[in-house]
Amino acid sequence: MTEMSDGRELGVGLVGTSFMGRVHSQAWTLASRAFDLALTPRVLAVAGQDSERTAAFAARNDIARSSTDWRSLLDDPRVDVIDVCVPGDLHAVIAEEALAAGKHVLCEKPLSNSLAEAESMVAAAQSARERGIQSMVGYSYRFVPALAHARALVGAGRLGTIRHIRAQYLQDWIVAEDFPLVWRLDRERAGSGALGDIGAHIVDAAVFVTGQRLTGVSALTETFVRERPLPAATGALAATAGSGYGPVTVDDAAVFIGRTDGGALATFEATRFAAGRKNAMRLEVNGSLGSVSFDFESADELWFHDHTVDASEAGFRRIHVTEPSHPYAGAWWPAGHGLGYDHAFVHEVADFVRAIAEERTPEPSFEDGLYVQRVLDAVERSAAADAGWTPVDADRP
Amino acid sequence: MTEMSDGRELGVGLVGTSFMGRVHSQAWTLASRAFDLALTPRVLAVAGQDSERTAAFAARNDIARSSTDWRSLLDDPRVDVIDVCVPGDLHAVIAEEALAAGKHVLCEKPLSNSLAEAESMVAAAQSARERGIQSMVGYSYRFVPALAHARALVGAGRLGTIRHIRAQYLQDWIVAEDFPLVWRLDRERAGSGALGDIGAHIVDAAVFVTGQRLTGVSALTETFVRERPLPAATGALAATAGSGYGPVTVDDAAVFIGRTDGGALATFEATRFAAGRKNAMRLEVNGSLGSVSFDFESADELWFHDHTVDASEAGFRRIHVTEPSHPYAGAWWPAGHGLGYDHAFVHEVADFVRAIAEERTPEPSFEDGLYVQRVLDAVERSAAADAGWTPVDADRP
Amino acid sequence: MTEMSDGRELGVGLVGTSFMGRVHSQAWTLASRAFDLALTPRVLAVAGQDSERTAAFAARNDIARSSTDWRSLLDDPRVDVIDVCVPGDLHAVIAEEALAAGKHVLCEKPLSNSLAEAESMVAAAQSARERGIQSMVGYSYRFVPALAHARALVGAGRLGTIRHIRAQYLQDWIVAEDFPLVWRLDRERAGSGALGDIGAHIVDAAVFVTGQRLTGVSALTETFVRERPLPAATGALAATAGSGYGPVTVDDAAVFIGRTDGGALATFEATRFAAGRKNAMRLEVNGSLGSVSFDFESADELWFHDHTVDASEAGFRRIHVTEPSHPYAGAWWPAGHGLGYDHAFVHEVADFVRAIAEERTPEPSFEDGLYVQRVLDAVERSAAADAGWTPVDADRP
Amino acid sequence: MTEMSDGRELGVGLVGTSFMGRVHSQAWTLASRAFDLALTPRVLAVAGQDSERTAAFAARNDIARSSTDWRSLLDDPRVDVIDVCVPGDLHAVIAEEALAAGKHVLCEKPLSNSLAEAESMVAAAQSARERGIQSMVGYSYRFVPALAHARALVGAGRLGTIRHIRAQYLQDWIVAEDFPLVWRLDRERAGSGALGDIGAHIVDAAVFVTGQRLTGVSALTETFVRERPLPAATGALAATAGSGYGPVTVDDAAVFIGRTDGGALATFEATRFAAGRKNAMRLEVNGSLGSVSFDFESADELWFHDHTVDASEAGFRRIHVTEPSHPYAGAWWPAGHGLGYDHAFVHEVADFVRAIAEERTPEPSFEDGLYVQRVLDAVERSAAADAGWTPVDADRP
Repeated sequence: MTEMSDGRELGVGLVGTSFMGRVHSQAWTLASRAFDLALTPRVLAVAGQDSERTAAFAARNDIARSSTDWRSLLDDPRVDVIDVCVPGDLHAVIAEEALAAGKHVLCEKPLSNSLAEAESMVAAAQSARERGIQSMVGYSYRFVPALAHARALVGAGRLGTIRHIRAQYLQDWIVAEDFPLVWRLDRERAGSGALGDIGAHIVDAAVFVTGQRLTGVSALTETFVRERPLPAATGALAATAGSGYGPVTVDDAAVFIGRTDGGALATFEATRFAAGRKNAMRLEVNGSLGSVSFDFESADELWFHDHTVDASEAGFRRIHVTEPSHPYAGAWWPAGHGLGYDHAFVHEVADFVRAIAEERTPEPSFEDGLYVQRVLDAVERSAAADAGWTPVDADRP
Repeated sequence: MTEMSDGRELGVGLVGTSFMGRVHSQAWTLASRAFDLALTPRVLAVAGQDSERTAAFAARNDIARSSTDWRSLLDDPRVDVIDVCVPGDLHAVIAEEALAAGKHVLCEKPLSNSLAEAESMVAAAQSARERGIQSMVGYSYRFVPALAHARALVGAGRLGTIRHIRAQYLQDWIVAEDFPLVWRLDRERAGSGALGDIGAHIVDAAVFVTGQRLTGVSALTETFVRERPLPAATGALAATAGSGYGPVTVDDAAVFIGRTDGGALATFEATRFAAGRKNAMRLEVNGSLGSVSFDFESADELWFHDHTVDASEAGFRRIHVTEPSHPYAGAWWPAGHGLGYDHAFVHEVADFVRAIAEERTPEPSFEDGLYVQRVLDAVERSAAADAGWTPVDADRP
Repeated sequence: MTEMSDGRELGVGLVGTSFMGRVHSQAWTLASRAFDLALTPRVLAVAGQDSERTAAFAARNDIARSSTDWRSLLDDPRVDVIDVCVPGDLHAVIAEEALAAGKHVLCEKPLSNSLAEAESMVAAAQSARERGIQSMVGYSYRFVPALAHARALVGAGRLGTIRHIRAQYLQDWIVAEDFPLVWRLDRERAGSGALGDIGAHIVDAAVFVTGQRLTGVSALTETFVRERPLPAATGALAATAGSGYGPVTVDDAAVFIGRTDGGALATFEATRFAAGRKNAMRLEVNGSLGSVSFDFESADELWFHDHTVDASEAGFRRIHVTEPSHPYAGAWWPAGHGLGYDHAFVHEVADFVRAIAEERTPEPSFEDGLYVQRVLDAVERSAAADAGWTPVDADRP
Repeated sequence: MTEMSDGRELGVGLVGTSFMGRVHSQAWTLASRAFDLALTPRVLAVAGQDSERTAAFAARNDIARSSTDWRSLLDDPRVDVIDVCVPGDLHAVIAEEALAAGKHVLCEKPLSNSLAEAESMVAAAQSARERGIQSMVGYSYRFVPALAHARALVGAGRLGTIRHIRAQYLQDWIVAEDFPLVWRLDRERAGSGALGDIGAHIVDAAVFVTGQRLTGVSALTETFVRERPLPAATGALAATAGSGYGPVTVDDAAVFIGRTDGGALATFEATRFAAGRKNAMRLEVNGSLGSVSFDFESADELWFHDHTVDASEAGFRRIHVTEPSHPYAGAWWPAGHGLGYDHAFVHEVADFVRAIAEERTPEPSFEDGLYVQRVLDAVERSAAADAGWTPVDADRP
């Protein structure tokens, strides 16, 4: 019998034990199995709100220590990376303190709940970068092979001049009017509603795939259901609310149109009210030489139209993005064996580990996250001003 | 042998011998074969610009007489209906004179090139209606069984409260920068570009299916290719132009967002620059109880999601809209045997004939056409004002 | 006003006033409108079983004369073509007498109800051909642009060596056990069930697209529902039957596997019991260089995979077979404007008219129809012999 | 800080370090994270052919020990489960020895390379079962939520009487004639070709979903490319082979038709020569009340047609099988967030662990595996006998 040899480890401290915490935990475990990494990441500790729940999370995910104090992770010298998987109101404080403590930071998206916070975080990231400390914002859809392949096709000039960007993120989990008032419907915690939660993803995906940034937008937002029952668990809150209902303080849906610095027209729609659409994160880009089209509900597929092919043989082709030659896909199974939602996070943390090992800035950077915040901010301002044209502030730190 | 018995005929005078003229001619021929009609329409005469071409059109389409003077059709007492299939700059004059002459009028869409003309046409239609003269505007997609079925589902309350309207009309026939400067790219003839040609269709389809009207819009338009080669045939024009190029004076694409009088958010996009999309006239409507989705590139299919079904069995279902119980479909072939683009026109003229026979106003009326013009006008004004919010004038004659 | 000029007419006598009669009647009307034909076909007379019904059919379809005696059409010197649109038990007698009378014959598929009849019909066709009289069997799917384009791709070598033919024709119109005992379920009239009605189409489509013929088959057939209620109208029959039920004497479904003369493996399935499949006439062909795939439920689409493309960009592409460069499509509307079930019949009769005008044998010929009969016969014999391997008789007249 | 608490562990010994070994290793790691399991599985040791490669595999997959002697795993008292992930020629010996040693056994599919071995393995499994030792065969597609949901729908009577089973497994990885002669093309190692590798999966999936077993088959197999270059690595072999080519001793494709004990007709096709189909493991079942349809290339989707719905609203609906109420799906992410190929293996081992903890026989059992072998054997005998009808031996141990 041969004993397992240890490689160089990269200690990770995970903050957050909900949906994102779990996905990230799994990603850290699988990254060095799927990819050849110079550093082997290992989650050493996890911090959460509730002691019991956090301990259970740690036990289940093979994490040695748990805590209810995220700052304790920053004090741990074996922790090299802080992974921020909590709601947006805590992003800035955790990320900035972590960076100050010399920890690399992976921060969930959107970068923050306000533009001011995002700017502050970028300043912190830039300062840390000078000290060799890296940071990344978790726009995970960049790591879906089909979207990474779309970017590659655009980058190779296969689409020519971009004319249209058409992005939608359609969900339906709050269509029912009696769906409870969860934290994602509370502006204090979530910053915004569909806009920041899912709209942020398509704003990022559009710039990722096309390389073009929005220069201005005109936007409408709407809150279709303005009061919802308080969550059953929150007895105290229900008592204070009297009726057991509370106000929805974020948007249910946001639609906006815009122009890019490359001369394209763009349309965006983010909603949680598209009955029957579960997680339809969609992007289509039309160029003078071709088009690409993607829908996360069929995540393994990229549809590519090559407009230079003779019309009699042309058409959108369904590329099953599982070939060894496709981005990230070669790390997994044979062609035709698709990946899941969680695999993109494995790619994400693997890229982050590689950037740390190679001492370079990973993508998407906090600056990339700030760009998205600028767009979200412009959208909200436009919506508040009756859809008035609102330039996206081009000041890039 | 039994000799064929004649029914009561409805004489039709067709104005226009191009694409639309041919589709309409065929529709008039097939309408009384497919449907039981009290009146049997027959195209008795056709008017076109070029004498030889018009005569050839008549011969080919089994039309007894041809002329280069459309007014001659108005003088013919056997002509009961004038069918206007020419570019938009001639709609108002022909339709109004025809109505004045006591002819029923079917007018191709969009109703006119300007809002003022549309208002005048509606006044003429209303005046004629009092004299028992009917008029209809040719928004043919209303007669595609799948869209008519979508309307029926909405009408039956199957979608609940409408939250979203998402409409696109994507084509790609002028993606090539050297595509010539045809009449559809000339504001004088066409009124506008993608907006009036195809955007008009989705504006009409949205109100047809949902019954909701836009109350305001915010819009962007773009002309990506601003100069194009003059058509080879137009030697004289080429000479005056010197360079052989002329300016594109209409929009290549229009995108807009809006609100409806029923509280829904709406997004619209019309473009001729979506490489690979040939005739993707698409409409999705999301409501509190369900959704419908349609793409004319798969015209026999209506996708319907019933949100009241248990989640474990719910999903968009592909209804092949060819059942006897579906709108118009029962007039044709057994279930599963699809229809083409031209069949919708058969349905359209059959509906028109029925309205004439029953002495009632057909749909879509000139008033319906005017509503679309009001939206197009608001879109153009918004686009000219930097996407500023622009109410759709609610004055309805 | 210019009067319509008459071209040279081709007189057609139509036998049959049901589904096929109506589709053919429409096709004859539209053929010379869509295509430039040296001869202009015109249905001059129609024969049917019931006098009143036939007269009504004639009136509705603009046919001058009607009769209950199909032989009267053969006597009419102005009738050049006899179009046989009745059940299979009458094909041989009508076609052979018509050919003997010097009429060109278009005969609906399958060519006959028995192999012996088919052989006799081919002999008659060959004899007539020497006298300049043409004949054609109505395998209409050959004239669907997508399938004709598939054949063109195979013919151009784009698929390389054919490995697999995978054909299905799935319907569901008799899934309900109380669906009545219509003529198509009666061996005397229909010859066979799903096998001859729809299985015949895919056998023909396979040889049409690939050029390869089956050399042998192994088959199973099944009649799932063995008794069905007699049709309501047939009161007398119901009385004699006593119970009101009668036996289904044909197959409900047939499945078979085989080998082709080109070395491919082939699978075929024809059924009327595929709940939810309305008219899923499907064909996929896999070769060493590429594949094509077709489903008539999306009739405008041909899916083509080019296996010579780099794997990272390869995938089945959805060709919308509506380009001017596609077979037959150029005769109709702009790209993206799809065709219906009936358009294929327009193509079919246009091809027949052209062959007559050019004095050459049209395709598919009666010999092509005989090949299909040989396969159907082998299938039935194999099924009767416990799926035993049964060579397809290669004797071709 | 709270230290992680250990649960009761289930020691796993993994035999095999290739594709399947890696997928299983990952599954064992994730099973207790995704599911609440009474026993926490942990891979304690791995055995492989090559010492260095096996050690590297162990290191990468967080496995403490590695060995080149699989029997050493049987000797380890901490190992409770042996997971057999090697080619079929070693299944019987490893599984039988492991069972004899009192280890639970998970054996990759197909159960064995011969029917005799399978029967022997079942005898061993039955004997072990009496001693509380469990065994399972790894037909992983049973654990794809969409297929498990299909089974549930059939089980709930939603399909009524089953009429048709239509199964295909289409791949294309050896379309190129110069693809090398890998072990899967060698009868000694693999037992058979497409038939046993992928045909086995659809035979199992069909019985899993419908509960019906094949009673007889008629089959054809083919080896399209009979010689292939020896793998580059096998220098010695190439030398002995002289030419550098060797014979392909397995089938490239197998097609068969059959009948089930429930009266259905079934068609099966397994091939590695379907250019453009990467991993199209497909199953459609048609019943008197409805149908289900599945294609692994879109693994999150189950298409369900409810034939009891009014025809005007009926159609195949795309169920995104990611709802909490769907089999296995609730263990993962929110609705709409799809799973990958590997997730099914997590479900598989979780089910196995649960069966061990609950001291019951897991599914699919070795008996289930034996049934598949009986079908494969009948297929090979039929193919050898010119597609002659071959009963599937119904003797079930």
